[in-house]
Amino acid sequence: MASLFLKTPGPSQSLPKTHKTHFVLPQNLPLSWRSKYRAGPAAAVRIRCGLIDPDGGKLVELIVEEPQRDLKRRQALSLPQIKLSKIDIQWVHVLSEGWASPLKGFMRESEFLQTLHFNSLRLGDGSVVNMSVPIVLAIDDSNKNNIGDSSSVALVDDKDNPIAILNDIEIYKHNKEERTARTWGTTAPGLPYAEQAITHAGNWLIGGDLEVIEPIKYHDGLDRFRLSPAELRDEFTRRNADAVFAFQLRNPVHNGHALLMTDTRRRLLEMGYKNPVLLLHPLGGYTKADDVPLEWRMKQHEMVLEDGVLDPETTVVSIFPSPMHYAGPTEVQWHAKARINAGANFYIVGRDPAGMGHPLEKRDLYDADHGKKVLSMAPGLERLNILPFKVAAYDKTQNGMAFFDPSRPQDFLFISGTKMRALAKNKESPPDGFMCPGGWKVLVDYYDSLIPSENGRVPEPVPV
Amino acid sequence: MASLFLKTPGPSQSLPKTHKTHFVLPQNLPLSWRSKYRAGPAAAVRIRCGLIDPDGGKLVELIVEEPQRDLKRRQALSLPQIKLSKIDIQWVHVLSEGWASPLKGFMRESEFLQTLHFNSLRLGDGSVVNMSVPIVLAIDDSNKNNIGDSSSVALVDDKDNPIAILNDIEIYKHNKEERTARTWGTTAPGLPYAEQAITHAGNWLIGGDLEVIEPIKYHDGLDRFRLSPAELRDEFTRRNADAVFAFQLRNPVHNGHALLMTDTRRRLLEMGYKNPVLLLHPLGGYTKADDVPLEWRMKQHEMVLEDGVLDPETTVVSIFPSPMHYAGPTEVQWHAKARINAGANFYIVGRDPAGMGHPLEKRDLYDADHGKKVLSMAPGLERLNILPFKVAAYDKTQNGMAFFDPSRPQDFLFISGTKMRALAKNKESPPDGFMCPGGWKVLVDYYDSLIPSENGRVPEPVPV
Repeated sequence: MASLFLKTPGPSQSLPKTHKTHFVLPQNLPLSWRSKYRAGPAAAVRIRCGLIDPDGGKLVELIVEEPQRDLKRRQALSLPQIKLSKIDIQWVHVLSEGWASPLKGFMRESEFLQTLHFNSLRLGDGSVVNMSVPIVLAIDDSNKNNIGDSSSVALVDDKDNPIAILNDIEIYKHNKEERTARTWGTTAPGLPYAEQAITHAGNWLIGGDLEVIEPIKYHDGLDRFRLSPAELRDEFTRRNADAVFAFQLRNPVHNGHALLMTDTRRRLLEMGYKNPVLLLHPLGGYTKADDVPLEWRMKQHEMVLEDGVLDPETTVVSIFPSPMHYAGPTEVQWHAKARINAGANFYIVGRDPAGMGHPLEKRDLYDADHGKKVLSMAPGLERLNILPFKVAAYDKTQNGMAFFDPSRPQDFLFISGTKMRALAKNKESPPDGFMCPGGWKVLVDYYDSLIPSENGRVPEPVPV
Repeated sequence: MASLFLKTPGPSQSLPKTHKTHFVLPQNLPLSWRSKYRAGPAAAVRIRCGLIDPDGGKLVELIVEEPQRDLKRRQALSLPQIKLSKIDIQWVHVLSEGWASPLKGFMRESEFLQTLHFNSLRLGDGSVVNMSVPIVLAIDDSNKNNIGDSSSVALVDDKDNPIAILNDIEIYKHNKEERTARTWGTTAPGLPYAEQAITHAGNWLIGGDLEVIEPIKYHDGLDRFRLSPAELRDEFTRRNADAVFAFQLRNPVHNGHALLMTDTRRRLLEMGYKNPVLLLHPLGGYTKADDVPLEWRMKQHEMVLEDGVLDPETTVVSIFPSPMHYAGPTEVQWHAKARINAGANFYIVGRDPAGMGHPLEKRDLYDADHGKKVLSMAPGLERLNILPFKVAAYDKTQNGMAFFDPSRPQDFLFISGTKMRALAKNKESPPDGFMCPGGWKVLVDYYDSLIPSENGRVPEPVPV
């Protein structure tokens, strides 16, 4: 792997206890960076020494210390058991490392209701943190009967190995229709996450405080890239970052993305930051069937990065362990909030983030602009600087990716994710300069690796 | 009408400019009155001299001053016109008097999105007010074309009389599915408000600042009971109220309601308030077909009140002009927030507030406890003291309504709204002491007045 990839975390350095914060009037900041929405306060750009505080002030870590693990394993054997799905385990992973700080486990009803209605949680001191997607664990009637009056349960994997203990539990109704409607803004059948994790799940939710017996590992050769928020914070501190800008992705990287990331760093330097660091942060949890799988995306990212477009000194590549909801404006808040917990104070938001096609109708499920609008106004994200994605397209006059110039639209070619995948599948090449040849080859190899269906053709993906 | 009914507002008194506020530790407050939910701060009960401030600090009033009205009527004639439905006019009424303060007109997209996603609006100073139901105006393609580049439009009634001017307009997409899903938590066909005001409405929404040409009147004999928030505040000030507790209702009042209201006053006096005043506030806008219409409810309220159960000195009866959404936990926030603007600092919340049966399934649409839970945690309502409804039922040992005593359940009879309506429709009598005979007669007369269907039977209402 390229040197950009951080294979082992650097020497752990504790975060400075006090942060000096000062505000800089964003005079050299383009207007498009400021909040354009009436209801929001003018976005002051904050330059701080030290990293942004995690939500709730302290990073939650729920993994049992080494000396206690055997004890907890034995304790788990004596408790009622709940079997976790792969997605459930991904959420245990997310919770265990504090991506969802200050959440300490699967949501109880008060947290679930606040998430559905307000996309935020009010803490004991009256402050508000963002929380837009329900992080919940479903159980069925027989699980519930089996739990009886126990106040704790063991969470086990498909081989009955104990993963975690859930304490001080609360069991409440799982209204799937309401959960789906309020999270996705539709109840149309065919939402990938709902089909996978809700429709056939139990009619109860169980919340409580988690004790995770050991760090979650996947043994897929990629665990070394799964840095926790604490490890990322250590790394940013080691590099003396005075700004961290996060780029969430679940697709192959092309030169337009690279242009955007490089340009963002340039603009942060212009604003007065001395050492802005990029967190290039592909999503590693559940994705829908027609997305490129994580292992192929990581190979592709490696080739692109080896191409030297991004500076290893100022880039950290890591895997974000969350599953995808494809819940557009609701989910983009989760993507941003989790990165605050990892130390990012700038977040790059694209067109139609976490969006997809409507499952039944021939249209996008979300308005392409709603993601960035909702993100700009979201409660609990006021500390995060939102950077709207500048549109890049293939500039035929330069044979490369460039920011779209509306004065000469005829010179630009838009290559959508769908088109990119179609080209790779058919072993066609994109125009020179769209993606480095090594990265493109990974994509072609991926589609080659799929078992062709009976008539010799690769199954058509759901249009996105 | 009884003396309880306020026929003309008292002499206008301006509100004190400064409010002295002091907090009282709720030592004599039953535990059930405190916030039970982990995420919320402990509810401090606030005793203040002067009334609670309106949301945003200032009551919005959008009615054009008398000398300007002719000018505005002429100006309206020169503008593109939008015809308002009855429900649209009810919303103009709501907005014009500041029930939705600080909203100054139909929502623009940023307000609509915040309402759908966060049930609240962030103001320019960073403070947050509650806003849970979209107050929007739908237009169709031909309206939109007709508006063209005009920055203002005239809103007219069904006889083309100008009602208001909407300025500095913004037109944006009306995604009906998303609006419905996020407001109701379902998209099932058969939601009364959706059928009435969304399903067949246009595909665009138009927001802007309202100038309402004259106060909205309905000429139904009940206008004198429609006090604006400013008029209610004047009345509470005139009465030297040091607490105002609001009781929202859209059903006939029975003795259980009266018991609750009387008991609430007693508890507020025990807490140290000197003069708690009840705002008995029936909803006057759109209700579904099987609810008892406003005019009959007002007659029924009058009879019940004449019975002397409530003290005229400490009760103000007025009509709340909002239409009903039947959106349960989402709508109850609107019901509470609007009453803050009218000066109420205590709000009585019932079981399953603003709830109804699921349109397709044999169950209630909302969990009966979610309304009060969501209300207790809602952003922007922290200043309001939420009083959960104590369950009253018919106590057979006392031949009257009493608070339910779980130690002797066999002594109590629960008479639901559905059962009450069924009894009145069939001219049967409820048990003695359930409702005063005069009030009950109004209900029987109402069902008598309905034109029987062909087979001589009153049409069966939708089950609720």
